[in-house]
Amino acid sequence: MEFSSLLPTHEMAKHNSPQDCWIVVDDEVWDVTAFAPQHPGGASSILNYAGRDATKAYAEYHAPSLIKDNLPLSCFKGNLDRSTIDKTWARDPSSNAAASGSNPTQAQSDEEKPPLHSIINSYDFEAVAARTASKKTYAFYSTAATDCWSRDMNESMYKRIWFRPRVLHDVSQIDTSTTILGNKVNMPVFICPTGLARMIHPEAEKALGRAAKATGIIEVLSTSASHPVEDIVAQAPDHPFFFQLYVNRERKKSEEVIAKAERLGFKAIFVTVDAAGRGKRESDERLVVDELVINPVTGERANTDKKGGGLTRMMGSYIDQSLTWSDLAWIRSLTTLPIVLKGITTAADAKLAMQHKVDGILLSNHGGRNLDYSPPSILLLLEMHKLCPEVFGQMEVYVDGGIRRGGDIVKALCLGAKAVGIGRTFLYALNYGTEGAEHLVEILKDEMESVMKLLGIKDLSECHPGLVNTADVDHLIPSTEGHPYAKWRPKPRL
Amino acid sequence: MEFSSLLPTHEMAKHNSPQDCWIVVDDEVWDVTAFAPQHPGGASSILNYAGRDATKAYAEYHAPSLIKDNLPLSCFKGNLDRSTIDKTWARDPSSNAAASGSNPTQAQSDEEKPPLHSIINSYDFEAVAARTASKKTYAFYSTAATDCWSRDMNESMYKRIWFRPRVLHDVSQIDTSTTILGNKVNMPVFICPTGLARMIHPEAEKALGRAAKATGIIEVLSTSASHPVEDIVAQAPDHPFFFQLYVNRERKKSEEVIAKAERLGFKAIFVTVDAAGRGKRESDERLVVDELVINPVTGERANTDKKGGGLTRMMGSYIDQSLTWSDLAWIRSLTTLPIVLKGITTAADAKLAMQHKVDGILLSNHGGRNLDYSPPSILLLLEMHKLCPEVFGQMEVYVDGGIRRGGDIVKALCLGAKAVGIGRTFLYALNYGTEGAEHLVEILKDEMESVMKLLGIKDLSECHPGLVNTADVDHLIPSTEGHPYAKWRPKPRL
Amino acid sequence: MEFSSLLPTHEMAKHNSPQDCWIVVDDEVWDVTAFAPQHPGGASSILNYAGRDATKAYAEYHAPSLIKDNLPLSCFKGNLDRSTIDKTWARDPSSNAAASGSNPTQAQSDEEKPPLHSIINSYDFEAVAARTASKKTYAFYSTAATDCWSRDMNESMYKRIWFRPRVLHDVSQIDTSTTILGNKVNMPVFICPTGLARMIHPEAEKALGRAAKATGIIEVLSTSASHPVEDIVAQAPDHPFFFQLYVNRERKKSEEVIAKAERLGFKAIFVTVDAAGRGKRESDERLVVDELVINPVTGERANTDKKGGGLTRMMGSYIDQSLTWSDLAWIRSLTTLPIVLKGITTAADAKLAMQHKVDGILLSNHGGRNLDYSPPSILLLLEMHKLCPEVFGQMEVYVDGGIRRGGDIVKALCLGAKAVGIGRTFLYALNYGTEGAEHLVEILKDEMESVMKLLGIKDLSECHPGLVNTADVDHLIPSTEGHPYAKWRPKPRL
Amino acid sequence: MEFSSLLPTHEMAKHNSPQDCWIVVDDEVWDVTAFAPQHPGGASSILNYAGRDATKAYAEYHAPSLIKDNLPLSCFKGNLDRSTIDKTWARDPSSNAAASGSNPTQAQSDEEKPPLHSIINSYDFEAVAARTASKKTYAFYSTAATDCWSRDMNESMYKRIWFRPRVLHDVSQIDTSTTILGNKVNMPVFICPTGLARMIHPEAEKALGRAAKATGIIEVLSTSASHPVEDIVAQAPDHPFFFQLYVNRERKKSEEVIAKAERLGFKAIFVTVDAAGRGKRESDERLVVDELVINPVTGERANTDKKGGGLTRMMGSYIDQSLTWSDLAWIRSLTTLPIVLKGITTAADAKLAMQHKVDGILLSNHGGRNLDYSPPSILLLLEMHKLCPEVFGQMEVYVDGGIRRGGDIVKALCLGAKAVGIGRTFLYALNYGTEGAEHLVEILKDEMESVMKLLGIKDLSECHPGLVNTADVDHLIPSTEGHPYAKWRPKPRL
Repeated sequence: MEFSSLLPTHEMAKHNSPQDCWIVVDDEVWDVTAFAPQHPGGASSILNYAGRDATKAYAEYHAPSLIKDNLPLSCFKGNLDRSTIDKTWARDPSSNAAASGSNPTQAQSDEEKPPLHSIINSYDFEAVAARTASKKTYAFYSTAATDCWSRDMNESMYKRIWFRPRVLHDVSQIDTSTTILGNKVNMPVFICPTGLARMIHPEAEKALGRAAKATGIIEVLSTSASHPVEDIVAQAPDHPFFFQLYVNRERKKSEEVIAKAERLGFKAIFVTVDAAGRGKRESDERLVVDELVINPVTGERANTDKKGGGLTRMMGSYIDQSLTWSDLAWIRSLTTLPIVLKGITTAADAKLAMQHKVDGILLSNHGGRNLDYSPPSILLLLEMHKLCPEVFGQMEVYVDGGIRRGGDIVKALCLGAKAVGIGRTFLYALNYGTEGAEHLVEILKDEMESVMKLLGIKDLSECHPGLVNTADVDHLIPSTEGHPYAKWRPKPRL
Repeated sequence: MEFSSLLPTHEMAKHNSPQDCWIVVDDEVWDVTAFAPQHPGGASSILNYAGRDATKAYAEYHAPSLIKDNLPLSCFKGNLDRSTIDKTWARDPSSNAAASGSNPTQAQSDEEKPPLHSIINSYDFEAVAARTASKKTYAFYSTAATDCWSRDMNESMYKRIWFRPRVLHDVSQIDTSTTILGNKVNMPVFICPTGLARMIHPEAEKALGRAAKATGIIEVLSTSASHPVEDIVAQAPDHPFFFQLYVNRERKKSEEVIAKAERLGFKAIFVTVDAAGRGKRESDERLVVDELVINPVTGERANTDKKGGGLTRMMGSYIDQSLTWSDLAWIRSLTTLPIVLKGITTAADAKLAMQHKVDGILLSNHGGRNLDYSPPSILLLLEMHKLCPEVFGQMEVYVDGGIRRGGDIVKALCLGAKAVGIGRTFLYALNYGTEGAEHLVEILKDEMESVMKLLGIKDLSECHPGLVNTADVDHLIPSTEGHPYAKWRPKPRL
Repeated sequence: MEFSSLLPTHEMAKHNSPQDCWIVVDDEVWDVTAFAPQHPGGASSILNYAGRDATKAYAEYHAPSLIKDNLPLSCFKGNLDRSTIDKTWARDPSSNAAASGSNPTQAQSDEEKPPLHSIINSYDFEAVAARTASKKTYAFYSTAATDCWSRDMNESMYKRIWFRPRVLHDVSQIDTSTTILGNKVNMPVFICPTGLARMIHPEAEKALGRAAKATGIIEVLSTSASHPVEDIVAQAPDHPFFFQLYVNRERKKSEEVIAKAERLGFKAIFVTVDAAGRGKRESDERLVVDELVINPVTGERANTDKKGGGLTRMMGSYIDQSLTWSDLAWIRSLTTLPIVLKGITTAADAKLAMQHKVDGILLSNHGGRNLDYSPPSILLLLEMHKLCPEVFGQMEVYVDGGIRRGGDIVKALCLGAKAVGIGRTFLYALNYGTEGAEHLVEILKDEMESVMKLLGIKDLSECHPGLVNTADVDHLIPSTEGHPYAKWRPKPRL
Repeated sequence: MEFSSLLPTHEMAKHNSPQDCWIVVDDEVWDVTAFAPQHPGGASSILNYAGRDATKAYAEYHAPSLIKDNLPLSCFKGNLDRSTIDKTWARDPSSNAAASGSNPTQAQSDEEKPPLHSIINSYDFEAVAARTASKKTYAFYSTAATDCWSRDMNESMYKRIWFRPRVLHDVSQIDTSTTILGNKVNMPVFICPTGLARMIHPEAEKALGRAAKATGIIEVLSTSASHPVEDIVAQAPDHPFFFQLYVNRERKKSEEVIAKAERLGFKAIFVTVDAAGRGKRESDERLVVDELVINPVTGERANTDKKGGGLTRMMGSYIDQSLTWSDLAWIRSLTTLPIVLKGITTAADAKLAMQHKVDGILLSNHGGRNLDYSPPSILLLLEMHKLCPEVFGQMEVYVDGGIRRGGDIVKALCLGAKAVGIGRTFLYALNYGTEGAEHLVEILKDEMESVMKLLGIKDLSECHPGLVNTADVDHLIPSTEGHPYAKWRPKPRL
């Protein structure tokens, strides 16, 4: 079959099984037989459209370019011959599925959400999302790798850091503003890049972008945003955005992407370095397992293999797992934008980052979603202080993971962070659209102001480690780059 | 409208909506449109009286002067023309509200309280209050800032300090008496100042004052006591009282208040220094949120903004947030009474207090109600020992927060406190009036005596740190004024 | 009224109210008006017999001499004139009470106890007692002071001490025998003295004495044993007993008691030194409070005072609270028996004990029943090692509190104890009489043997600290006799 | 009765009570009166066959040789005279029992197991076994000694060891293979020897052997495997097996067993050194206790003694408890196979093992089944690093106990283990036969690969201690071979 051939619907109809599955998206025909079992949204959401037109369903979740980024060109089978479309073929097969009872992708109705003003903290946003979003959405957002230890510790470690408030300072005027890589922000907060934001709200990153501008913070856009990036940045003209990059196996694609980011006016590139492998996120995988039991095409019990595979297990199969420190020079050569490494978790790598002259590092364990038992992120700031305090003077240091309160932000800043990233909570707030995200920022700002006054500081330049007591966690911080009493192996490798 | 004009009731009736709300208190007309949403008791308790006479309802909770202290004079609209009062206008609108089902301000009937003699410890008082006081009252009393960590740790840290009892000492006679700022007391305890004591008992601070005298302890009266201070001190003639001061933005008002305190014979001024900002107390805020959903005036769904705001969120808007150490000279110039700083939480500030020659400090995190993650108060005594033991010799040191047992008092004294403050528990005991507060003191005294005998000491002069084992918490105490291994910022600021 | 006068029943009948209450015990008339509210068994169990003959009820719980030891002679009113007894007067009033529903002193029937062979560890004994003994009995046995922290920690600290087992030692023959003060025992265990053993089994200390002999351990008899000591020791002829002494305010009485102990062949005197005050045991007090609500005599709501007072609150009002170290010489002068101080909880007092040349010390916090937050007893062995290891060479050191497993016994011995005391668990086992106590010893011995084999030791002389890992608790052990960083008071007093 | 005599069934029928109980197995008559109460499977499973032929029931659980290994020859009564068998005698008495309601040995039907592909981690296997295996099987597999502390800590200590992941390493190719004693394996895992595997699946060790070969790991066969070892090794020709040895009191038997192991091609001998005593496994014992209440033979309440005794209490009565270090020379003399000591728990014994030139040690507390409060096994690797790092260079070091995740395996290897053993989890997986065990290995391998990529390593030679943070447990590791501050006994014995 040639590249430019037009494919009639009766040809399509032959490829309608899990063993041989073609679909149409935007009049392009793709063979997704190999991809379907790896589909982040579960195989059934693709197999429903085996031999049919999936354009509309596709657009609900994905930006147009995504299919090309994820599938090898060999899967492209040609264009649909639209003249052959008839009524039967065109009928949306998803209506069948929707009729058959409880749908894990079905959100509860909007009426069930409590009014936004009754949300008084970030926990409320999560609680509402847990109740009102679809099971699949909440599973995908809330899950983390294996035992979810790092996710939970990200949060609980903040609660083991105390304040040491000072009294009798003039705090009648409070200022929470600062800069991030030179960009002025009203609060030291950026919205972390996340996948599949459209699952909870159709406006997804667009809504977040508007909220970012309205409240004066910055959104970091994901490589796999669910709207085209140009559409998103158009929501907030003259407002800074950052771009998150997964380096593609096909380096050319990354080069194009970076060029485009520059063109669109992004202010920095966040290169993700902690996703060389894929985290095993189990609540996610369980939903997929449940779904696979019945093959949606044939109605028969699926002949599944033994491995589960959740929404994110197979995401990012295009990510280059061979990326090394020496590749940073290549990235540096592509752009003049500031470069930030996202996902540093040791002092040793922070020092390497500094030696490679990046502009910033984001201390992060990917929200606990990739390697469970990675260090709780706030503790990494302490590791930096202990083992490589010099990094604070040479680049900006950020932290994400586990931030729920304005006070958490202040703690991170006292420990040297220039700003913090927040991911999941913005997705939960997005349940209420732009207004929800704005409300979240207002809550956090209000909490920050209250904390700053009571701590005796009037602006963020007054943050310093002496305002926090970390005694409850200090013993958890490594005191050397290697293991303290393991001498049987020569030394920690670089 | 002129200052001295008389306002007829038909004029009042025009200002009967949330957007334009006047009320009458003691024949004075006030515009409370701006204030109502910030009202500690919730907007509805004011809006119920929009365009009407709120005198009676006001008097249930507040001392007469409070409205003047909280509202700018520009809100005063004139005096009511009493000749225009008719029956319809005079009818109490609250009877409507009371008719409509479950009222969060409605306490359960007195019959439901168990008999006082069945209360055998301080926890019992709280448990009874949780059951029998109104939801709003219990929420206001029991709540604390954000995660309530400091509140809970105040209490649980006492349980991590152990005794080291000595045997074979003659303990046939036990004496729990001591002095506080030279005033003889039967026990090393004072009643902490609290707001809105009238919510649980109409006699409020008056009842507590009588109990203080009867049991030989001292009551510290709040700036915002719910009875006029002269009425309260009249309950216990020839018995010492202390006065708690929030410094007012309008310094003249504080000058008047201090002069009055001296005139009334108070024995010390406790200047609160930890309330420059307002704690975010969430269980409190939730009740307000629930209430605002239905506008009590119009019966329609309220057009609320997104921010909640609980009973205490907006309390004390008159507090001067620009107060600094240099202002202590001004306070010192106003009175010869001993001055105590209430709310010190670091050794650095304790040293400053000492340098400023105050007579005492109260180590306190405001019951966890202002800045969450402030240090558990009993640990502050240990910080003093580690970093500035000299303060114990130069001024009296007190501690409050988390004391539930006579043994807790003995622990605090062994660690250097001259006396301890107890707040919430006295409010819970006030549920039973004067007799309840007396019973609480008796319980604590009985517990103290039992502990002292078993510890092998016969009077409080024998308290010393060797009688407690703090090994389980010692690692939590900072060993320097700054952060132990953070060297990237010059030094802790003063 | 003269000392020797005979009192007719009609005179008795006049003293039949809580305000004026006489009872007859063994034909002696006692005024118990003042004592009743303090009665360990609750006032009602006495007031039931106001103006009547309580002999039978008394004998159920108490040894004959107890009433004389506890009441001042001034309460003795004379002897009953038996000729005046008539049917009405003689009727047992307790039958009324029994008719009126749920009786807290009523045990469940024997049939409900599971068969003894199904009891496989000490926890089972407690669980059965909790279910089948009367509420009052279980409350009295299981309770401890205030928050029950020391009681619970006594047990849980054993679980934080680990073994360091050695392999490939010949353990084909295991020997658990040792000596205590020169007396040969099959296991390093003695039964701690306890009050009111008769509540759970009529044979009480007699049953325990028989079991001690049968299994080759030693019973320590309480000053307030519920059978006459001569009757108890008669159960186990030629078997050693120890005697526990509460020194009486009337020293003569203690002299008599010690003389009697010598005469009866006791092998040691355990002088209790940790009961100068009375612990506040709350579950106990609550039962009394419940009971007092209805006056059993008048049927009216009782006019009670505010203080509760449980079974043990007022026990031992005869104990001399002025006893000091210098009184040990007096005790020493009274007997040649070995003297052991029961209730040492600091290294400082252990050294004093050594200097006073006693023969042994029992490290104990009285089962957590007296001073809550006293150190968990097993940790005291570690304190001795740290601060006064010399005591192990100069006297025998025992420990009690929290021992539930044979492994716990081995841990205590590895840490230097010569033997351990077990109290509560023997009371729970006594629920099954002599056979229950024997079964308990067999279980513990079986557990010890298993532990010793797996630890690689064949007899108790091989116990040493290197076989346990105390790293999880080492930081809890004080490193000085005073407080480590409190220098503001001269020094810990002696 | 002579050794070779033939016994008629009517003679058998006389020995049909608990007091006198003979059974036939493979035409041999054994007197099991003394053995029955000690029977690992409970007395009733034997007494059911008192005076009858138990061949079929026996074969369900045991290898043929087992009866001879466990019973003294004096219990052999002769051979059955098969000519005397009649219908009544031959009837299977177990059918009676099966009719009478809930049978603790009855597994739930296969249909109730969820499909294998829905099992996504090792916890799932246990959860399914808990639901679908018989109560007795699950009790025997899951139980551990007394408080089950060591069992639970084995697992939870892994969760207190964190990763220190390195970024920007090329991890596009991952290799989990290594060698164990020179044998190539696809993963650093061996299946630990366990008893009674047949309880959960009839194929037992045979199924595990096939899975071991299929997945490229090694099975260690138990001395008391439930199939003849020759049958098991025949399942996986040309694949290495290891042999676990309990040294028999009758040394000759062990000599035979070792000779046979060599003959069958086993690649190593694992000598168990931590089973000199028997662990007290209580959930196991409780089932036995329940069963004994009704004597299955007579229907009467059993005249039981007071001691319980579970499935494993009496197992291994043939184990030589007098085995010492000097016996290693004897074992060494019997074989040229590598020798591994299974059950080392101290650095002192690891050094002795090294001095005795064994080829490896397995750090293990027997899954917490023998001595409770033995050190959590992963911590033992840290003890080795602290006190005897030289052992890592001189022999292979393994660890078992508590491994549930691929990440746990990586942690153990980073801390110096050459491989890890997994026991219980393979039994739970065996619930699904060979396929289940294979699925378990695939899950663990998939988890390992994910962890290795995210940790930045591509093969196991890159594991090193610097990749883990053990700060949360470091304080639990002994720093000397003896007790740190116990000087009163000369020194830890050898």
